[in-house]
Amino acid sequence: MNMNYMKEALKLAKKGLGSTSPNPMVGAVVVKNGENIGKGYHKKKGEPHAEVIALKDAGIKTKGATLYVNLEPCCHFGTTPPCTRAIICAGIKEVHISIKDPSPWANGKGIIELKKAGIKVILGECEQEANELNEAYFKWVKTGIPFVNFKAAITLDGKIADLNKGSKWITNERSRRFVHKLRSQVDAVMVGVGTVILDDPQLTVRWGRGRNPKRIILDSHLKISKEAKVLGDKCIIASLSGRGEPMCSPESLGQTHKFARDVRTTIWHIKKDTNGKVDILEVLKRAGKENIQSILIEGGKEVFTESLSRGLVDKVYFFIAPKLLGSGISVIKDLGIKKIEDALSLTSVKFRRFGDDMLIEGKLKTRC
Amino acid sequence: MNMNYMKEALKLAKKGLGSTSPNPMVGAVVVKNGENIGKGYHKKKGEPHAEVIALKDAGIKTKGATLYVNLEPCCHFGTTPPCTRAIICAGIKEVHISIKDPSPWANGKGIIELKKAGIKVILGECEQEANELNEAYFKWVKTGIPFVNFKAAITLDGKIADLNKGSKWITNERSRRFVHKLRSQVDAVMVGVGTVILDDPQLTVRWGRGRNPKRIILDSHLKISKEAKVLGDKCIIASLSGRGEPMCSPESLGQTHKFARDVRTTIWHIKKDTNGKVDILEVLKRAGKENIQSILIEGGKEVFTESLSRGLVDKVYFFIAPKLLGSGISVIKDLGIKKIEDALSLTSVKFRRFGDDMLIEGKLKTRC
Repeated sequence: MNMNYMKEALKLAKKGLGSTSPNPMVGAVVVKNGENIGKGYHKKKGEPHAEVIALKDAGIKTKGATLYVNLEPCCHFGTTPPCTRAIICAGIKEVHISIKDPSPWANGKGIIELKKAGIKVILGECEQEANELNEAYFKWVKTGIPFVNFKAAITLDGKIADLNKGSKWITNERSRRFVHKLRSQVDAVMVGVGTVILDDPQLTVRWGRGRNPKRIILDSHLKISKEAKVLGDKCIIASLSGRGEPMCSPESLGQTHKFARDVRTTIWHIKKDTNGKVDILEVLKRAGKENIQSILIEGGKEVFTESLSRGLVDKVYFFIAPKLLGSGISVIKDLGIKKIEDALSLTSVKFRRFGDDMLIEGKLKTRC
Repeated sequence: MNMNYMKEALKLAKKGLGSTSPNPMVGAVVVKNGENIGKGYHKKKGEPHAEVIALKDAGIKTKGATLYVNLEPCCHFGTTPPCTRAIICAGIKEVHISIKDPSPWANGKGIIELKKAGIKVILGECEQEANELNEAYFKWVKTGIPFVNFKAAITLDGKIADLNKGSKWITNERSRRFVHKLRSQVDAVMVGVGTVILDDPQLTVRWGRGRNPKRIILDSHLKISKEAKVLGDKCIIASLSGRGEPMCSPESLGQTHKFARDVRTTIWHIKKDTNGKVDILEVLKRAGKENIQSILIEGGKEVFTESLSRGLVDKVYFFIAPKLLGSGISVIKDLGIKKIEDALSLTSVKFRRFGDDMLIEGKLKTRC
């Protein structure tokens, strides 16, 4: 087993970060006589898959070659023809695959098809990296719920804002630039309407390259201003009811439709939770149905607390600035945790320095 | 200028960390014809100074040599004879000094004496490192107040304990080991009596080598239990009044003396601050008078808040564990800060990783 070829496939796959969704990131390398003769990665839905690009790149030399790919090749007709067929036709002798594709249209079927054609299949190389690379896709395929990221910018003493709710700026420019990068890598960002009213953020990618994510606003009673910068094509408001009173009356619904048209924004009607607010889990389920595989929660305190206490967060990013506020708005409220040993513990912890700020990143166990 | 010799002197000086106080850390290197012919560092008060050890190490070859030392040599009779005399007698031709000794018995006098003897003196090499190395000594010499360090172990959301005040353990063993190292490097640790009552800590150096620091307990009304582990020879209780009521009555004073004898502990009578508690600044002044040059504040929340809000802290150490508690005891309370731009900002920020814990270290501006 030469791990280097699979590592190269993974590196190629990663080039699709932020643009392949709802497809997974896939990279492929064709090797013959110890020589890398072809490579490719999937750029975006509708464009060719990595395997096909790599095979094309290798040209007429593919007969008897070995293919390395970080995900099980597809065997169904989607927006493109099945990759298994292309692999078989190219005369590939051996296929190395990091991990099975758990989606119902694959899930081992691709591997069976390759084996049936007499191709030797080796499964499991760099499995962990491959799993991590497409963690959002895997979760969404298995549960229908997007992979939930959580980002907070805090002081050393855990505050996201001062007593006047001012939060500009806790962290430095380098940290904030990285947040734009995170945004470009998810399908949607999500904030509460409180944050919109307070900060009037755009929630777009303005630093660096990358596509703008969708923007989901949790706004139970449609309090958002028509002038909010966050509104527009890619904006979705998750709301309990309509604009105007009484809620859900024909007048209210009419006003809501007019509002949505006026601000060119989609409105999702969502069930309420036990607190009488928009149920975040229902929002996530709805997002999943709309092919949103990954979400970045950016605030505020209420959304942070609700998402953590309900076990909906997969990964957190805490940007810590070397400052002390004392009083101010704490990043999270009561999570129902009474003892230290029950604290939510991050795993796969990573650190990244941005000047004098420190990013602490880690995973949490979710309950969905 | 060859910085390497001075860097070596600084490295030697650092070997005295935790044992030279109330003397500064000093290292010296003797160089002749580009060759290092002697070296030494100061181990502890009463033992020879670095310059003398380095000259002895060089033996008969010192004539015409150059001496590198990170602090101005002394020129007075203290517990040892003046170093300037030893340098002159050894026939040293040139002396490189990082920084002046600001103490009243030196403060340039040593340099003048060397120059008078026809020795060339070069001042300022590695000044910043030299200043940092002896920052505690310099502050104490200039102000009479110890250099105040502050250490807290917190969750990502800034909690030092859960709702039941449980704090065992927020951080991991590697972090806690490092705290023992910090203790071994200061003259005294300081905590409030609340922490003593709650955790019954020993506040000694049990992991790793190093001397035990003195232990100062802020205990306005002598509430400490006779059984507290922290009591004993190296323990000092800073108290407003006496044990028993009415305060400061002859009965109360008698009881206090008996208490101090019983528990083999020193009691300092300290003035009260505006809140009617032991005035921390007065405690620091008293500590300075007792040759305590450096202090490590270890808790709890009240002492943390009081020392920070009054601008008494020189350096902070925040050990951050990758955990979230939500509710619990916050590391600091109100500091009187209303806006983010007025937040206490750390400078000279350093990071150190202990497994999944992160230490964020930095300096603060003090008001004393």
